[in-house]
Amino acid sequence: MERIKCTISYDGTNFSGYQMQQKDRTVQFEIERALRKIHKDDIRTHASGRTDARVHAYGQVFHFDSPLAIPALGWVAALNSALPEDIAVRRVEKVHSHFHARYDVVSKEYRYKVLLNGRDNVFARNYMYRYPYRIDVSTMEAAAKHFLGTHDFTSFCSAKSDKENKVRTIHEIEIQQNGDELLFRFVGNGFLYNMVRIMVGTLLDVGQGRRAPADIPAILEKRDRRYASKTAPGHGLYLWQVNYNN
Amino acid sequence: MERIKCTISYDGTNFSGYQMQQKDRTVQFEIERALRKIHKDDIRTHASGRTDARVHAYGQVFHFDSPLAIPALGWVAALNSALPEDIAVRRVEKVHSHFHARYDVVSKEYRYKVLLNGRDNVFARNYMYRYPYRIDVSTMEAAAKHFLGTHDFTSFCSAKSDKENKVRTIHEIEIQQNGDELLFRFVGNGFLYNMVRIMVGTLLDVGQGRRAPADIPAILEKRDRRYASKTAPGHGLYLWQVNYNN
Repeated sequence: MERIKCTISYDGTNFSGYQMQQKDRTVQFEIERALRKIHKDDIRTHASGRTDARVHAYGQVFHFDSPLAIPALGWVAALNSALPEDIAVRRVEKVHSHFHARYDVVSKEYRYKVLLNGRDNVFARNYMYRYPYRIDVSTMEAAAKHFLGTHDFTSFCSAKSDKENKVRTIHEIEIQQNGDELLFRFVGNGFLYNMVRIMVGTLLDVGQGRRAPADIPAILEKRDRRYASKTAPGHGLYLWQVNYNN
Repeated sequence: MERIKCTISYDGTNFSGYQMQQKDRTVQFEIERALRKIHKDDIRTHASGRTDARVHAYGQVFHFDSPLAIPALGWVAALNSALPEDIAVRRVEKVHSHFHARYDVVSKEYRYKVLLNGRDNVFARNYMYRYPYRIDVSTMEAAAKHFLGTHDFTSFCSAKSDKENKVRTIHEIEIQQNGDELLFRFVGNGFLYNMVRIMVGTLLDVGQGRRAPADIPAILEKRDRRYASKTAPGHGLYLWQVNYNN
């Protein structure tokens, strides 16, 4: 048996999220179907975490165990030819048998893309959140600073979450404006359900002047989802990179 | 009756082309369906020309006559709310009753996008042609110069075309490389069936060193499709702009 670590991109547009469900098309279902084609047998996969419907990944990671002795580049080719075109394997590595794609995560990077334009853009509609309001990036940056470090993020987590511990550490937040495109980068040790999208929704409210940067510590303090702004839509979000030791 | 000129974008991915067909989903069908919803009656539209399956438009133009007295911005809103999300109306103008979206075209601009990268890119797969070979832009520019001006483009036209006159004038060709993205711009008084895609296919062969710039005049001279290179795929092509007098 060899343990295989796989880094994949997917276009979330036509998926009901990463994780297997009864009825809908999911990324995990397509991956396990491709592995079944290759192995003529069921192969269980373990991902770094789920992503929601319409959320994209540039660098999702999963692992599986295989009895087949295929070199890493052979795996890339075999998987890409068995997968549908909205999932692509970027990299395959052979790892120790105790590596785990979920439990060994050290940090993750998410990105969120916003289009600051009132005009309908048919090409960006599935890949960026259209937000046609004037925003001030420096005010958003001042607000974002309050998220850095270790906090209880209950106010920035979907009330549907079943995680007990809502304390997470954010290492880095960057906000870049490039013409009418706005890019958010978040790096942290872990993110709760909808956490990035609720932070983005709240930061956009700050950028538009509907909330002040100093509101962020007060919202965190409340530990109540109802105090933060609304969840930004899934199609602007990208699971960009998952980091492990080594 | 008012004659309405409409400028639209569409994402060609899920269309079998612009023009109405028996079975498949087309842009024209969706537009006429939206107009029928608004008028409760059949409304005939006339576009600047067709586009093929999977070809995109940033600025396709069509016209129609309407008995409704709706201001231009009202038309934009009404049409966008009646159209599916892969078609967007960018602009509506009221024009003279003798304006014709097809017969009055003065020139058109097409763009073609290439991704010079061997790695699967799930986000570009429907919007750029992936061409993972080393290319030389200056050689392609030297070749492109031979297309400028007035020529018989029979060799660069699908053999399926039923147009008698294959003489067209190309005013401008520009090739820009930006990292691993390659953008072609073509401006001309008109383009034959598949003409841009066959020119791009041939220019890429030149850029890769499989043909020389001096081959272009010889291929034009032959007036035979078989001498040019293969047609580049539709999903890299964009009908960018249609120009009229005034």
